[in-house]
Amino acid sequence: MPEAVGVGLVGFGTIGTGVVKVLLRNAEVIEQRLGFPLRLLRIADLDTETDRGVDLGNVRFDSDADGLIEDPEIGIVIELIGGYGVARDLTLRSIERGKHVVTANKALLAVHGREIFDAARKQGVDVAFEASVGGGIPILRSMREGLSANRIQSLHGIVNGTTNYVLTEMEETGEAFEPVLKRAQDLGYAEADPSFDVDGIDAAHKLTLLAAMAFGAELAFEDIPTEGIRGLTPLDFEAAEEFGYRIKMLAIAKLREDEGRERIEARVHPTMIPSKDLLARVDGAMNAVAVTGDAVGPTLFYGAGAGEMPTASAVVADVMEVAREIHRGSAGRVAPLSYVPDALQQKPMVPLGELVARCYLALSVRDQPGVLGEIASILGEHQVSIESMIQKARDHAAGAVPIVVLTHPAPEAAVRSALARVDALPAVVAPTRLIRIEEEL
Amino acid sequence: MPEAVGVGLVGFGTIGTGVVKVLLRNAEVIEQRLGFPLRLLRIADLDTETDRGVDLGNVRFDSDADGLIEDPEIGIVIELIGGYGVARDLTLRSIERGKHVVTANKALLAVHGREIFDAARKQGVDVAFEASVGGGIPILRSMREGLSANRIQSLHGIVNGTTNYVLTEMEETGEAFEPVLKRAQDLGYAEADPSFDVDGIDAAHKLTLLAAMAFGAELAFEDIPTEGIRGLTPLDFEAAEEFGYRIKMLAIAKLREDEGRERIEARVHPTMIPSKDLLARVDGAMNAVAVTGDAVGPTLFYGAGAGEMPTASAVVADVMEVAREIHRGSAGRVAPLSYVPDALQQKPMVPLGELVARCYLALSVRDQPGVLGEIASILGEHQVSIESMIQKARDHAAGAVPIVVLTHPAPEAAVRSALARVDALPAVVAPTRLIRIEEEL
Repeated sequence: MPEAVGVGLVGFGTIGTGVVKVLLRNAEVIEQRLGFPLRLLRIADLDTETDRGVDLGNVRFDSDADGLIEDPEIGIVIELIGGYGVARDLTLRSIERGKHVVTANKALLAVHGREIFDAARKQGVDVAFEASVGGGIPILRSMREGLSANRIQSLHGIVNGTTNYVLTEMEETGEAFEPVLKRAQDLGYAEADPSFDVDGIDAAHKLTLLAAMAFGAELAFEDIPTEGIRGLTPLDFEAAEEFGYRIKMLAIAKLREDEGRERIEARVHPTMIPSKDLLARVDGAMNAVAVTGDAVGPTLFYGAGAGEMPTASAVVADVMEVAREIHRGSAGRVAPLSYVPDALQQKPMVPLGELVARCYLALSVRDQPGVLGEIASILGEHQVSIESMIQKARDHAAGAVPIVVLTHPAPEAAVRSALARVDALPAVVAPTRLIRIEEEL
Repeated sequence: MPEAVGVGLVGFGTIGTGVVKVLLRNAEVIEQRLGFPLRLLRIADLDTETDRGVDLGNVRFDSDADGLIEDPEIGIVIELIGGYGVARDLTLRSIERGKHVVTANKALLAVHGREIFDAARKQGVDVAFEASVGGGIPILRSMREGLSANRIQSLHGIVNGTTNYVLTEMEETGEAFEPVLKRAQDLGYAEADPSFDVDGIDAAHKLTLLAAMAFGAELAFEDIPTEGIRGLTPLDFEAAEEFGYRIKMLAIAKLREDEGRERIEARVHPTMIPSKDLLARVDGAMNAVAVTGDAVGPTLFYGAGAGEMPTASAVVADVMEVAREIHRGSAGRVAPLSYVPDALQQKPMVPLGELVARCYLALSVRDQPGVLGEIASILGEHQVSIESMIQKARDHAAGAVPIVVLTHPAPEAAVRSALARVDALPAVVAPTRLIRIEEEL
């Protein structure tokens, strides 16, 4: 029998438990695919007490992560401890010891990716991270290899299950954000501190990885315009439905070529998309990424974006890929970010103000004569042309009426300037909400 | 600069032209991803006259396929001539000469796959065939690598664009099969002889490849129960909509485990699936494959299943993958059918009669008292329980009325026995149509 590849796991939480389950339960099919077995040799976690409900047999389990990294029988270290500090240290030290690393840690890669990939290249080891975006969906592999012949033109991703769950629930129940978030927290779909998810930070982290793969563009995630979903109201969902849209939290990146200059448009925000679009049918905690390439045209990759077993599916697929390399005595088959390091560039980003999109505007105004005309005039002065304007009946008792406006495509800067003036009108009682519309995914 | 990999193309038709376009147009991004260039050196086709509308520069183009195969500068032969005979010969001879082969020819692989893969393994070369299923969708790569940690439980694929186009049009227009097929032929979505597509043969070819990847099961494509779409009528689409279904031509394969025995259920036929399912929203000539794995859960891969550029996207992705191997002086990184050859087995198939499914039955009966009761009794005697039975008003003038029946889940053998008796009733004027329903995709 060909030699087994030794695997060590650092971080025995939910995902780690899933990884152990998959490695043990599917050992036979894994070996049938690889031609040799994987052997889980060691697990390290600070918590060695909690019963994870898996029979570890003779797998060594202790809190000695350092020992695991040093263990000469271990060829692949699976890093599942999360966060930036300890994870970075552990990953870099594993690489130094000549270990290949598999991780699901998008935050780590979004922030310290360059350092980690450089170190891995110098040491001749692989760093694999399929599980860091889209959970079980093999989206990174597909962009790196399946669509590698394409100039990627755009990608639109539902890459955060928590926000997609909350939006789906808000739409279905007509409830406000807070109670739905509370329920998501009770059900385990949202963290106690949900900001990472609902404010779009997690999606922006993932977008930096996706944009690198798609365009060879190194984006700093802090530079990605990011808006969360806290401001959305039941009215927005109601209006979206009337207009033939659904609201999805999207991570969007596009290649823009103006006068021979390549720039990247990247942003994370709640977006109205046509209801008939496949991406609009992705509900609950599921994820999907739509990718358009110049040759392949539109594609979509759908699956569970999080959770114990789906994420473990991606982690173990990576372990298998790396194990093949170990068996062949090689590494670095594919550039981790799809483009070889020299080709990765800090491409200029399109400022959000230059974005041209149809917009949904939700205003709250005092019900008095002439207000609609005033608003329409201001929008017109900024060349923002109105496709439809509807006065909704709700909240009338509160002394204000909601108005929803759909604009024709307009530059965001113009819309923002107009809204600054609109919101300063005495009759406008609350800041206007803007939701961008994407027609072509 | 690292050495280029030389590529030769045999077959300069539609797909071949797309491949040339992608190789030339995207040369820069391809090199940025590989770290070295691909060089298209030679093209061979019997037709050297037709203008393909691409500037070949100094690419040698003649009808000398033999010379191309022998050319020592060519490392990868792209086989795009189609069919079984010449394609098989050319592929095997290329392999003998130590060339890696990239092909889009599912018919060839479905029939001669074992011979070709064996020859390649002996010679230490790769045979890549992503384009043979699902056009530009990287579905084979995803099953082989992205989902490799899973025991695959089921797959449901819309893998033939022609039939999906015809079904979508029939549903949208309410027209019968023949005029819609005619239009599809006029538009180039269907061949002059459409049987390969509309009778399900193409889908069955693809299913043999998908089932091998999913389950390590070698299926003979002749053994796959296959039904085409010729028998469908406007009434079926109307009834499907009423019941909350859409009709899709599916290639289906499932792993069945009964009393510890693994068997494969595989079939190709028009199927009613819930309208809310993502697969039901795949329209026109687009393809999609839904795959469920034990760890990842449900996934779906969507994109263009045919056409010049989408298919070229997959072919060139394969060329890139193989070129990486050439650069590394290796081959055989991944087993072509996902399972190592020793693990591929001729697993027993579940006979269609054992299939348990809800069924849609469309009957045509004389409008006379007692007929419905008689039919219901016969179904009941065969333990086929009726969920609903609707008499449709159409064709009343013709002396017959259509009846549509939705059954509870029942073994196909029981339904078939019942239908044999039903169709023998004097009041039943045409053979009853059966469309199987899949609820869980």
